Amino acid sequence: MDIPILLKTEANMNDTICAISTAAGVGAIAVVRVSGNDALSISDKIFRSMKDGKKIATTPSHRILYGRIVRPGGETVDEVVCTIYVAPHSFTGENSVEIACHGSLYIQQQIMQLLLDNGCRMARAGEFTQRAFINGKMDLSQAEAVADLIASNSEASHRLAMNQMRGGFSQELAKLREYLLNFVSLIELELDFSEEEVEFADRQKLVILVDEIRERISTLANSFKLGNAIKNGIPVAIVGETNVGKSTLLNWLLNEEKAIVSDVHGTTRDVIEDTMQLDGILFRFIDTAGIRETKDEVESLGIERTFRKMDEASILLLTIDSSYVIDEIRDFLDHYLPRITDKQIAVLFNKTDIITASKRAELENLPLPDGVVRLFLSAKQDQNKQSLLDTLVHFAHANLQEEKNVVVTNMRHYEALNHALDSINRVSEGLQNNISGDLLSRDIRDCMHYLGEITGEITNDDVLKNVFSKFCIGK
Amino acid sequence: MDIPILLKTEANMNDTICAISTAAGVGAIAVVRVSGNDALSISDKIFRSMKDGKKIATTPSHRILYGRIVRPGGETVDEVVCTIYVAPHSFTGENSVEIACHGSLYIQQQIMQLLLDNGCRMARAGEFTQRAFINGKMDLSQAEAVADLIASNSEASHRLAMNQMRGGFSQELAKLREYLLNFVSLIELELDFSEEEVEFADRQKLVILVDEIRERISTLANSFKLGNAIKNGIPVAIVGETNVGKSTLLNWLLNEEKAIVSDVHGTTRDVIEDTMQLDGILFRFIDTAGIRETKDEVESLGIERTFRKMDEASILLLTIDSSYVIDEIRDFLDHYLPRITDKQIAVLFNKTDIITASKRAELENLPLPDGVVRLFLSAKQDQNKQSLLDTLVHFAHANLQEEKNVVVTNMRHYEALNHALDSINRVSEGLQNNISGDLLSRDIRDCMHYLGEITGEITNDDVLKNVFSKFCIGK
Repeated sequence: MDIPILLKTEANMNDTICAISTAAGVGAIAVVRVSGNDALSISDKIFRSMKDGKKIATTPSHRILYGRIVRPGGETVDEVVCTIYVAPHSFTGENSVEIACHGSLYIQQQIMQLLLDNGCRMARAGEFTQRAFINGKMDLSQAEAVADLIASNSEASHRLAMNQMRGGFSQELAKLREYLLNFVSLIELELDFSEEEVEFADRQKLVILVDEIRERISTLANSFKLGNAIKNGIPVAIVGETNVGKSTLLNWLLNEEKAIVSDVHGTTRDVIEDTMQLDGILFRFIDTAGIRETKDEVESLGIERTFRKMDEASILLLTIDSSYVIDEIRDFLDHYLPRITDKQIAVLFNKTDIITASKRAELENLPLPDGVVRLFLSAKQDQNKQSLLDTLVHFAHANLQEEKNVVVTNMRHYEALNHALDSINRVSEGLQNNISGDLLSRDIRDCMHYLGEITGEITNDDVLKNVFSKFCIGK
Repeated sequence: MDIPILLKTEANMNDTICAISTAAGVGAIAVVRVSGNDALSISDKIFRSMKDGKKIATTPSHRILYGRIVRPGGETVDEVVCTIYVAPHSFTGENSVEIACHGSLYIQQQIMQLLLDNGCRMARAGEFTQRAFINGKMDLSQAEAVADLIASNSEASHRLAMNQMRGGFSQELAKLREYLLNFVSLIELELDFSEEEVEFADRQKLVILVDEIRERISTLANSFKLGNAIKNGIPVAIVGETNVGKSTLLNWLLNEEKAIVSDVHGTTRDVIEDTMQLDGILFRFIDTAGIRETKDEVESLGIERTFRKMDEASILLLTIDSSYVIDEIRDFLDHYLPRITDKQIAVLFNKTDIITASKRAELENLPLPDGVVRLFLSAKQDQNKQSLLDTLVHFAHANLQEEKNVVVTNMRHYEALNHALDSINRVSEGLQNNISGDLLSRDIRDCMHYLGEITGEITNDDVLKNVFSKFCIGK
């Protein structure tokens, strides 16, 4: 792997680094992580085994030692458990020690301070994973997946990150590069024998291969929209006039989810905010201003703005106050529904608790375009919520049908794939136009370069810095 | 140790319990703790070793296994490191597994869910420590120290909790109980031979011992005020009129500290609020309304209220606007200083940047009572802060001079000590009045009972529930 020299130098790979790796705050236990050449000997300076004077540096890898962290004067800072990893059998590939201590802020700080006093340096964000990458323990896309894994908050986004971390994406890219490499080698061999005009590379086969690769790269690039939806939540807009019960509806939906989440973990409320999970899929609710039932052309500007906002959504929940006059409702739907394209739409007839049976019959008979789902519910009276939830899941599954394949979730990968696609398109055109082998070779090499950027086989310091700066400290 | 039967039953000691033990939220890594008879076998149900099919249940204690947490279908939830503790060599004294996973909320939840699905129960607050207590791994005062240790946020409070956790307090109480037990045994022997009127227990020696014990218990009980100050911060009141710069002064003091803290850990800002640490000692600032420079008797009611509030403080910082007319300042000091007793006082002449040299000379010559410290400073211009900090530390050290001895920090212990003191006082009186051996024996047993309550040798379910409910989940 080509790790730039500058990175290796700037990374100060000879430093031994340390960081608090568990979530910030007070817990029952916290873990301080130490990694680098001197991780074992520095840890020994502040550690006293509880019995029989065992040393960290002479303990075999993958063992634990129970003991005390002590100040220079011998005063006990905490009783801890140290887990010892001897290089290269650790996450970073270096000697590493994980110190599990009592989770007070004071103890966490003191242990960090003692490590710093004894020659460690504070780890930068993502520096442990960066070292794992530099030491060849994982490629760049896998390293990025570690950060995604930590940030993942739904079954689907977790599965994508786990798949990427375990190397699914990398393997696919490696395969594509290998195919390209075989051909480009043959083409470059031709160049060596250019005076003899031989063709080692079968152009027919190359056309077929390039088409396949273009198709595959294109699919990967296209999967980004889906990947993004899985990672950040499938965007759902609740649309309607201001007093039709949009916010009641949203609370009704979100409360349910909050209650489920808090069964296992009481602290996610702040995090999920306006997202919710159903059936392992994350939904993200987009805040749209109310649209108004109007034919007045003067107001169309404001409505345009709302429509642009709605444009982010994959799913629209068009919310109607069922108690409105039937003609107004019909006009509203006739006015807006034709303007909405390329979305999954459910028309929610809300407040069904306050309408008559005959009004309901009228609403049931209102014509709706094909594919638009019609639901009757009352958010206030908690009626028919399950149908709405089922509809959201149904829409999502239609969205997510490709999920079983490799899905791109990372903007950097998406951009590299688009560059690779441009290159492979040039290869394709070149083959049609019978361009010379050296130009063909250059375009194929370009494509390989961009694919290699994703896994970090080809990279530069700026990219790496940017990738690892997005990590949390301690990872 | 007498653990009530009810507790053992209610504690459901046969259940295998699990909890997330690291701080709530997203981190690089998180730790899920499992403890109980079936901890090893339940963990094996959801764990697959990365190589060679190793099982948790057949791995020796104090080893780690690297592997995957899997769903029933075999899908990987996360790659984890499991640390294995085989009973009785664990914190709880039971079989235990600590699962170190990636720190996303989703992964934490999923691992918990899988453990629950496979027969674990969610641990209640403090339940791991409760089990350690029930299994005789620590006494009650040590268990309480674990909670204090986690909550400790200064060097001094940390040292007290560490000392208590390591058994300093328990040892002292055990010694006192042993002395009492020896005597009460002799007295009760006398009762068996009561018709012969022998005296096995030398009353002279008993009087001396009882005096010593009373003295010691009294010292321990009295140390509570100090212990409380160390644990919650030495209370400091900044007193003065509203516009003399009290809040500027407080911010000036606190900002300094916040900057120091954030060097190592960026997240303590919310926690420390109106406390600050100097030289490892926590100071807690009490909010007092401004007192007014008045001789008007009508206002005395409001002033009384402020004085009651100031009464909580050990240290008073009486803040003066140096630019005021000298006679007003003199009147103010003459009026208030004599009314303040039993406190350490510093008079802060603030705003020295805006006064003349001659005004300063006048202020330097103002008579102040013995022991009151006089300081000139400007909070706004950041002048002479170090003197103020030094004064606070100096005051605190005078406060904390007893710290090297055992210090009581726990209200429950304090109450038990006061009960023990009442009993030992009755013993003392009884000895003076030559009361009968059976009454003497009862009072000594009472005293032993209360001392035993502290270490949990004598306890009841309500006390235990109350103690452990104060813990965080996962400890």
